[in-house]
Amino acid sequence: MQTESKTLFEKGEKVKNENFSGTAYLKMLVTNDTENPIIVGNVTFEPGARNRWHRHPGGQILLVTDGVGYYQERGKPKKILRKGDVIKCPPNIEHWHGASIDSHFSHLAIGNSDKESVVWLLPVTDEEYLK
Amino acid sequence: MQTESKTLFEKGEKVKNENFSGTAYLKMLVTNDTENPIIVGNVTFEPGARNRWHRHPGGQILLVTDGVGYYQERGKPKKILRKGDVIKCPPNIEHWHGASIDSHFSHLAIGNSDKESVVWLLPVTDEEYLK
Repeated sequence: MQTESKTLFEKGEKVKNENFSGTAYLKMLVTNDTENPIIVGNVTFEPGARNRWHRHPGGQILLVTDGVGYYQERGKPKKILRKGDVIKCPPNIEHWHGASIDSHFSHLAIGNSDKESVVWLLPVTDEEYLK
Repeated sequence: MQTESKTLFEKGEKVKNENFSGTAYLKMLVTNDTENPIIVGNVTFEPGARNRWHRHPGGQILLVTDGVGYYQERGKPKKILRKGDVIKCPPNIEHWHGASIDSHFSHLAIGNSDKESVVWLLPVTDEEYLK
């Protein structure tokens, strides 16, 4: 069981908004500019933490750097993710991600700022999280 | 001194072209599709390996995952890069990257396939590499 969160990239600050439940950290590693719309964030979830259902109009790429986590797209089974796993989520597909119940979880998140970044939806219920 | 190359993400195959000198490996982790132009490669250089001078019309982001390496933009001093370092190279700025003389070096490379991927230029001389 891994319970201490370490991060390969800068860990950043605690996320303080209702789009995340539990304890999560975010560091924007790369922001957009007029010449390059690509943005990269480092997201770390403590055990049990997750974000709400959401979708990205420009799609999203997740690169798992540490720990064990979950990723689920609407209507599909939850996937278990580990270090080295890669997820490419198509534009506007509803999904959520977060740590597993007993491990922290860190991933890079790559987005395209030419489109709206994220549309937040309902929280992931405990039933959905544990299923 | 680190001499054995391990990789967080899939290591891929040996690069077999004149744009790299020494031993390097490339695995494309994410390819483009009609909905998302972002591409992500995992590049691993054995000690002393590097690529040619080159430029990316869409710019490039490097995220260092292991080892010790070098990065240099034309007209600027060589930078030493380590795990957790992030480089955002602007479009069309000539640069090269590679392992240091005595360590392997791994980085993720993020590009934008809406623009031409890369324009290769001259090899990095030993004098430039060691300076």
